Amino acid sequence: MAGPRRSVMKGTKVSTMRLPSAGFSITIRVAVTADSSAIGRLTTAVGEAGAIVTALDVVDSDHVRVVADLTCDTADTAHADQVVDALGALDGVEVRKVSDRTFLLHLGGKIEVSPKVTLRNRDELSRAYTPGVARVCMAIAENPADARRLTIKRNTVAVVSDGSAVLGLGNIGPAASLPVMEGKAALFKRFANVDAWPIVLDTQDTDEIVQIVRAIAPAYGGINLEDIAAPRCFEIEARLRELLDIPVFHDDQHGTAICVLAALTNALRVVGKQIEDVRVVVSGAGAAGTAIMKLLLKQGVGDVIAYDRAGALHRGMNGLNPTHQWLVEHTNKTNYSGDLPGAIKGADVFIGVSAPNLLTGEDIAQMADKAIVFALANPDPEVDPREARKYAAVVATGRSDQPNQINNVLAFPGIFRGMLDAQASEYTEDMALAAAQAIADVVGEEKVNASYIVPSVFDPKVAPAVAAAVTAVCRAAALPPEPIA
Amino acid sequence: MAGPRRSVMKGTKVSTMRLPSAGFSITIRVAVTADSSAIGRLTTAVGEAGAIVTALDVVDSDHVRVVADLTCDTADTAHADQVVDALGALDGVEVRKVSDRTFLLHLGGKIEVSPKVTLRNRDELSRAYTPGVARVCMAIAENPADARRLTIKRNTVAVVSDGSAVLGLGNIGPAASLPVMEGKAALFKRFANVDAWPIVLDTQDTDEIVQIVRAIAPAYGGINLEDIAAPRCFEIEARLRELLDIPVFHDDQHGTAICVLAALTNALRVVGKQIEDVRVVVSGAGAAGTAIMKLLLKQGVGDVIAYDRAGALHRGMNGLNPTHQWLVEHTNKTNYSGDLPGAIKGADVFIGVSAPNLLTGEDIAQMADKAIVFALANPDPEVDPREARKYAAVVATGRSDQPNQINNVLAFPGIFRGMLDAQASEYTEDMALAAAQAIADVVGEEKVNASYIVPSVFDPKVAPAVAAAVTAVCRAAALPPEPIA
Repeated sequence: MAGPRRSVMKGTKVSTMRLPSAGFSITIRVAVTADSSAIGRLTTAVGEAGAIVTALDVVDSDHVRVVADLTCDTADTAHADQVVDALGALDGVEVRKVSDRTFLLHLGGKIEVSPKVTLRNRDELSRAYTPGVARVCMAIAENPADARRLTIKRNTVAVVSDGSAVLGLGNIGPAASLPVMEGKAALFKRFANVDAWPIVLDTQDTDEIVQIVRAIAPAYGGINLEDIAAPRCFEIEARLRELLDIPVFHDDQHGTAICVLAALTNALRVVGKQIEDVRVVVSGAGAAGTAIMKLLLKQGVGDVIAYDRAGALHRGMNGLNPTHQWLVEHTNKTNYSGDLPGAIKGADVFIGVSAPNLLTGEDIAQMADKAIVFALANPDPEVDPREARKYAAVVATGRSDQPNQINNVLAFPGIFRGMLDAQASEYTEDMALAAAQAIADVVGEEKVNASYIVPSVFDPKVAPAVAAAVTAVCRAAALPPEPIA
Repeated sequence: MAGPRRSVMKGTKVSTMRLPSAGFSITIRVAVTADSSAIGRLTTAVGEAGAIVTALDVVDSDHVRVVADLTCDTADTAHADQVVDALGALDGVEVRKVSDRTFLLHLGGKIEVSPKVTLRNRDELSRAYTPGVARVCMAIAENPADARRLTIKRNTVAVVSDGSAVLGLGNIGPAASLPVMEGKAALFKRFANVDAWPIVLDTQDTDEIVQIVRAIAPAYGGINLEDIAAPRCFEIEARLRELLDIPVFHDDQHGTAICVLAALTNALRVVGKQIEDVRVVVSGAGAAGTAIMKLLLKQGVGDVIAYDRAGALHRGMNGLNPTHQWLVEHTNKTNYSGDLPGAIKGADVFIGVSAPNLLTGEDIAQMADKAIVFALANPDPEVDPREARKYAAVVATGRSDQPNQINNVLAFPGIFRGMLDAQASEYTEDMALAAAQAIADVVGEEKVNASYIVPSVFDPKVAPAVAAAVTAVCRAAALPPEPIA
């Protein structure tokens, strides 16, 4: 994610917030002398090393030795090594094997292709394949719209990446991005019964990506662009929208923007402010930040100031790319050009999609009364949320171990479910506004509070609500305007 | 499939061989007056129209009327219409609805993408997706070979088509070809647990297809090219083999060639001839025919004469494409240039992969003693197999309603299973020879006879036998040569 250079920002403070999580869960097989305190010494050592024991299974035991599998959550790879070392350093303990549960889960990939038809006998084969399939082919050749009825196109989305901006990992290329795209496909199915397939491209050339996605499009009812670096992602998306008759959605942009708007809608309910009245500062004017600002402007936000590596985007800057030029022309009413801590003085909302530890609690204290802080850089937010919470009325992050996790999983499954159901030919900002409202309304006026501005990603009401909102927008758009009597 | 022009061939005879099949099964809902003979009149009318009743379900009934669903196999779409008309013409019968069971089966597509991991709670989500997935990505970024271990690449094949030569339907384009590619993917899973994904391309430009397949390849452990017209398919395949480190297999070529060689191996067992001694005439020098001839030559066949639209391929012809030029240089020892019936006089084997009804039973009668005839044009073979069987010792077709169906399903699932298991980097002719032998040996010396030269497509021994043969070839190739002591 592009963001302000840390070195030029004031108030930079490094805080180590990594906590043990299931994403870094390891299983350590140890042999230990069979005395009454043996197991206790193991779990104590793990706890002292800062990890959390989540399971202990005795594998083998005799009068002399116990062999046990100790499963524990660690904070990261280095921490996992420390835990293993701590165990190995104990008297009478031998570490035999360390298994990483995350790697075990990914072995052989996380999705598979399953037939929806049975092929038990000749009759079934002759309907699903030759000769019966020939008639289905001819029906589509004669009426191309039938592809939405008679093929996977009806329910299938391509998840396309060039591996150039993967999670916080940067430009790691197509093969290394595949685990993320597979995971995304698994989430699509899990949360909205959408069939999604990863397309990871061994090219980072804009023209080539556009040409390839155009060529592979006939099998899909929608395109989800993913983890493609800005500003290339903007041109790719815009050109594909021109070329294709199916929706093109860049999740890093639009998914994030929808979730942020949903969260902001409820945060404003909590603090009792109107969006027209608030001044927002956004740190990070890459794919996510730009889309967030565009959607906030569409929703009628009071004002926005955008920060990028070069500082506050303001009129009078030279050599801007087209996206930043557009932002300069549509944001920053006072044409502020100072630093980030200066910008958030008196601001109602801070939204960070940039880099860790740009702001301190003292900076947050300078914001307007009942401030809202969304510090979404992952895994380390722009400001320590525990510090921010001392001064702001509502704080959200992208982390799953803090309240108010803003997670794209809230948006993309339902968005595509709705677009596929409505056979939408494009993705529109009206859908985004409707989806954001739908997510916000799953929480609702009654239940909303400073620690609950977005629903859980596991709330089964979210995807159907988003899908219904998107479908309603499509239907409304398809209706002819009422004649004026 | 390219083949000899019918008008220039002698002995052309049109025979209508279409029989009712499950591929053309329809369900007709009829209301009929409730007298004791009503149902009988329905089934009689269907039978007289040449269709076969496979099910009769009474849906509703009272003292006056019976409403019934009559399911029957018909020969083709026109025949289905005739059957419906015949029922409608009966006194006291009203046709209410006609459903096509094949279309019902294809609604919404025939494959889906399923997660192999559960995503029930936060821990599972954090291992399959962020933050856990990041470590898996970095492992692949550091060691690209790990993609075969930690992603779908280990078990996944792309089924790539440009829709230019689909079944017998010709150039119907990518969307209309999708039902075939989906069906292929379903067969891959059903017969060899291979995950296959259809990639249908909205381009028929050779350079562009090569570029696209190269770019999408990182997610796949193999490429199955499908239904791409000759001679373009040869260049695409050859260039992709140069560019990629995974196997590239054009099923229309190699799958067909392997099955034909398997069938020929057993047919020669039946007639007691050796492949070195036989003269083969091949009608059709497109993708399938060329691959068949190359594999027969590799296996040491006595001689081959190739027929294409222009007649017998022989030295002295001008303006040949590179593939036909190669054939001219490696086949037709006597440089025969006459017509097809002339060529098969005294020939031991006729293999047709071309066009219907090129030969008569009288032509087959002129072949050598104990002749072998593989008339594989679909749905109507080069010669009526019932006629051919009067004169030839062994007859095979591509039809499922005749003995000895030569069907690519015997080869491609096991071939890819073996290549994926062995992590093969290319497909080789040695694999083809081993696979053909494995298919032939599933029948075996003991059971082989003139009506049983290939196993059933549902024989569960086939794919594992083919996979094991392919894997053995890979392992042998990977072993260093024995040092000469």
